[in-house]
Amino acid sequence: MLPTVSFVGKSNSGKTSVLERLIGELKRRGYRIAAVKHDAHGFELDQRGKDSWRLAQAGSDVVILSSPQRLALIKQVEHDLAPTELYPFIGEDIDLVLTEGYKKGATSKIEVHRKDLGGLLCSPQELVAIVTDEPLDLPLPQYAPDDAEGLADFLEKKLLSSEQQEETILWVNGTSVPLNPFVQNFFGKVILGMLSTLKGVAEVKNLQLWLRKG
Amino acid sequence: MLPTVSFVGKSNSGKTSVLERLIGELKRRGYRIAAVKHDAHGFELDQRGKDSWRLAQAGSDVVILSSPQRLALIKQVEHDLAPTELYPFIGEDIDLVLTEGYKKGATSKIEVHRKDLGGLLCSPQELVAIVTDEPLDLPLPQYAPDDAEGLADFLEKKLLSSEQQEETILWVNGTSVPLNPFVQNFFGKVILGMLSTLKGVAEVKNLQLWLRKG
Repeated sequence: MLPTVSFVGKSNSGKTSVLERLIGELKRRGYRIAAVKHDAHGFELDQRGKDSWRLAQAGSDVVILSSPQRLALIKQVEHDLAPTELYPFIGEDIDLVLTEGYKKGATSKIEVHRKDLGGLLCSPQELVAIVTDEPLDLPLPQYAPDDAEGLADFLEKKLLSSEQQEETILWVNGTSVPLNPFVQNFFGKVILGMLSTLKGVAEVKNLQLWLRKG
Repeated sequence: MLPTVSFVGKSNSGKTSVLERLIGELKRRGYRIAAVKHDAHGFELDQRGKDSWRLAQAGSDVVILSSPQRLALIKQVEHDLAPTELYPFIGEDIDLVLTEGYKKGATSKIEVHRKDLGGLLCSPQELVAIVTDEPLDLPLPQYAPDDAEGLADFLEKKLLSSEQQEETILWVNGTSVPLNPFVQNFFGKVILGMLSTLKGVAEVKNLQLWLRKG
């Protein structure tokens, strides 16, 4: 899996501030980062009256703004997408995905805790570390809210330095199809084998393939 | 290719208004639409101080907001992406891509013309139709700016009713790899053949595959 860690915590625990500092530190170390914010209640991103808003308002299922520096996309979805369902949008050239607000799901979780908000949101068994403004009597790595370096060291050790496994993710007709490790390996090897016959394709780190039937 | 048509025209010719009405009409006819606005000068989408803005500002290469109703993404890019390079973001479940502002490129082009702005921006040979507030002496289909039905009829006939060809698009290490028709067909057939061995995968209309090497 694309290395992914979820930051969870109560409202106003300071998750976004912790992420801001952590992203800055990881960027200084040369990593490519995707940040994903989950909002169960919806959000307004584009501004009323702007062209992008008008095109979305007219009923477009997808609106994209594209410039030489950046790309913005707004897409109507039919269900709440899990972090792994976002991977095709994230792209292949990312080292680490940091998410905020996904309480459920299989990714590693770090809770951001503040003394004056009371107890933890998650049970300690669900967590790999805690960012906290008070020492907690728990057998988990703990980092102060401003200790972006410590937290980055932890993530480097836990998620970024280990050998990543080859992984194949497949969507058919817009729905993800679970593949067991054997099938993933089979699909991966066949596709890499076909690719190796193409001129101009050297070492493959990642690939994305998009097929549309007639 | 995913059916794509580019609306071009001078500033203030009314491109976005034409697109708004056309998108409304195509949605009434049941099509799934992606609208792409090209802005060579960049744009501001997210709002200063909001969490998404803070995460982008901190250096994230990708920022995603995800809610049960919609998904928003902001991605730093290294060059001006062509419409076809946007297909992986658009997703597979779209019938027609309407773009605004791509003067170059291989897609069909429709110019939006206004009498008081002077002559056409494109040469007529580059165009498949014109949206115009004055009759022009040109051998091209012409539609009034508010004739969304006529324009939708034209697009249905030209782009949506014809047999679509099977198409395979491939990116390796973040760069698109051109595939000739033979190789596209070969890759497509092998992958569809492998897929047919999986339980639970019935008729494939489209698929997206994402592979990351260890």
